[in-house]
Amino acid sequence: MPPIQRVLLVGGTHGNEFTGAYIIKKLEQHPNLVHRENFETVTLLANPKAFAAVRRYIDKDLNRCFRQVDLQDLTRSSYEDIRAREINNLFGANGKTPVDVIVDIHSTTANMGLTVITHEHPFNLQLVTYLQSLNPLVKVYILPKSQESSSLPSICELGCTIEVGAIAQGILQAERFEETEALIGNILNYFELYNRGEIPLFDNQLTCYRHSGTIDYPRNESGEIQAMIHPKIQFQDYQALSPGEPIFLTFAGEAIVYEGTSTIYPVFINEAAYYEKGIAMCITQPQQVIV
Amino acid sequence: MPPIQRVLLVGGTHGNEFTGAYIIKKLEQHPNLVHRENFETVTLLANPKAFAAVRRYIDKDLNRCFRQVDLQDLTRSSYEDIRAREINNLFGANGKTPVDVIVDIHSTTANMGLTVITHEHPFNLQLVTYLQSLNPLVKVYILPKSQESSSLPSICELGCTIEVGAIAQGILQAERFEETEALIGNILNYFELYNRGEIPLFDNQLTCYRHSGTIDYPRNESGEIQAMIHPKIQFQDYQALSPGEPIFLTFAGEAIVYEGTSTIYPVFINEAAYYEKGIAMCITQPQQVIV
Repeated sequence: MPPIQRVLLVGGTHGNEFTGAYIIKKLEQHPNLVHRENFETVTLLANPKAFAAVRRYIDKDLNRCFRQVDLQDLTRSSYEDIRAREINNLFGANGKTPVDVIVDIHSTTANMGLTVITHEHPFNLQLVTYLQSLNPLVKVYILPKSQESSSLPSICELGCTIEVGAIAQGILQAERFEETEALIGNILNYFELYNRGEIPLFDNQLTCYRHSGTIDYPRNESGEIQAMIHPKIQFQDYQALSPGEPIFLTFAGEAIVYEGTSTIYPVFINEAAYYEKGIAMCITQPQQVIV
Repeated sequence: MPPIQRVLLVGGTHGNEFTGAYIIKKLEQHPNLVHRENFETVTLLANPKAFAAVRRYIDKDLNRCFRQVDLQDLTRSSYEDIRAREINNLFGANGKTPVDVIVDIHSTTANMGLTVITHEHPFNLQLVTYLQSLNPLVKVYILPKSQESSSLPSICELGCTIEVGAIAQGILQAERFEETEALIGNILNYFELYNRGEIPLFDNQLTCYRHSGTIDYPRNESGEIQAMIHPKIQFQDYQALSPGEPIFLTFAGEAIVYEGTSTIYPVFINEAAYYEKGIAMCITQPQQVIV
């Protein structure tokens, strides 16, 4: 693989996820912090209008606007569709200044700590294994490529999405902010080492969580939720949930148990933005991989 | 004082504070839960449009629209101004079905546990002292009457605002939901006992926190925040903060210390909705009162 020439760091793809947005604002003022000798780093506040409005989006979720077929469809005229085209026309493969890697910084109300989401490309797997070798608390969440294909980073083969949580929408948490900055520093360092051919030996065993589906809230015919996340699994992302264990609590106070046939490892538990998407949690299976 | 005849329970004054909104939706379906023999309880989802949009408000903060002078001003035509007039015309002193008490249920991203906010009316102080005697974890936050006078409950002399946290905007937390329900149950029981003249003896020593001001984030000339809540005080609502102790952390990682002259007890620390109001935290002073 050729060297990395240009890296795009993104924040504020969702306007109310302040961690990424404020990291980008900081880097706009102090580009030296992401300067490395052997590649260029570009920063992008992806949805400035939603950030100003402290909302996830203005018209629709920007991070679902990047399917190639949608990017080609010039009749799409929502703010986010237009913005997606602008971003793709700048940084996509056929853009003005295409990038080799995209790192998109998000936050979540789920207790996902420092999570790196990526798909199974050898370069991406090397990167996340390196990050986990430096900080064993880093969680790696593997999405199938198709799942990712409407997200902003999907316009580029290499890269990842960072999810930091639990953080409420519309606030900054200083400790999480600094942990995220440190993670980004490690990512950029990896690219620099890669370009120099100086990647050190590191533990090549990766613990990752592979996406296998989603679970919605119980809802009535009108689509209104009829239960909450059960207190026993609130903030318990990446922990085992076995058949027969409580998963929801109805408003009447009755536990609903998980009725699957095998143990799952939920993530994005009680993510605020997913209520409207019909997702109470995503399901994963843990896996040890030698990379 | 005459008996309580009609109580108004309110949720969803802010559309993205789900705890109160979903409690009201539950009570609309099960009014028996708030039925008491000696008074009537009415429920209100105060800002249904903002709740549907999962936003604090559509045009402006409904909970700042209830100043008497504003309610009289019929030229005010924002969604929330109109809604405030409707609510006042129904439940205010000169309304169609005036109420004697209002209890307005909110949530906050600050770690305020179960907080009851009220002003210094003897009936209100009796109520909150009773609530604290039942559950010592209940915090009581006393606002001067003037401070409260644009809030929804200000259209009524008696009552309180409940704040539950830390809860992210746009989510439900089952444990907090049930704690809040229990608190509301205790409040209604108190009114019933009051009407019957059967209020039992209870510990009449109240620990309360008296509002004394607010502190904003450090900002630049454009109004952009230049620092975050310091990790040492994040989620430390109601804890002492003394001069010289860290209060903010700049984006460069430098601590800013609190430079006041006396110890304060901050609350609403890092409340998401207050970034735009110029409030990083509210300041209180604790006080023991014999009620």
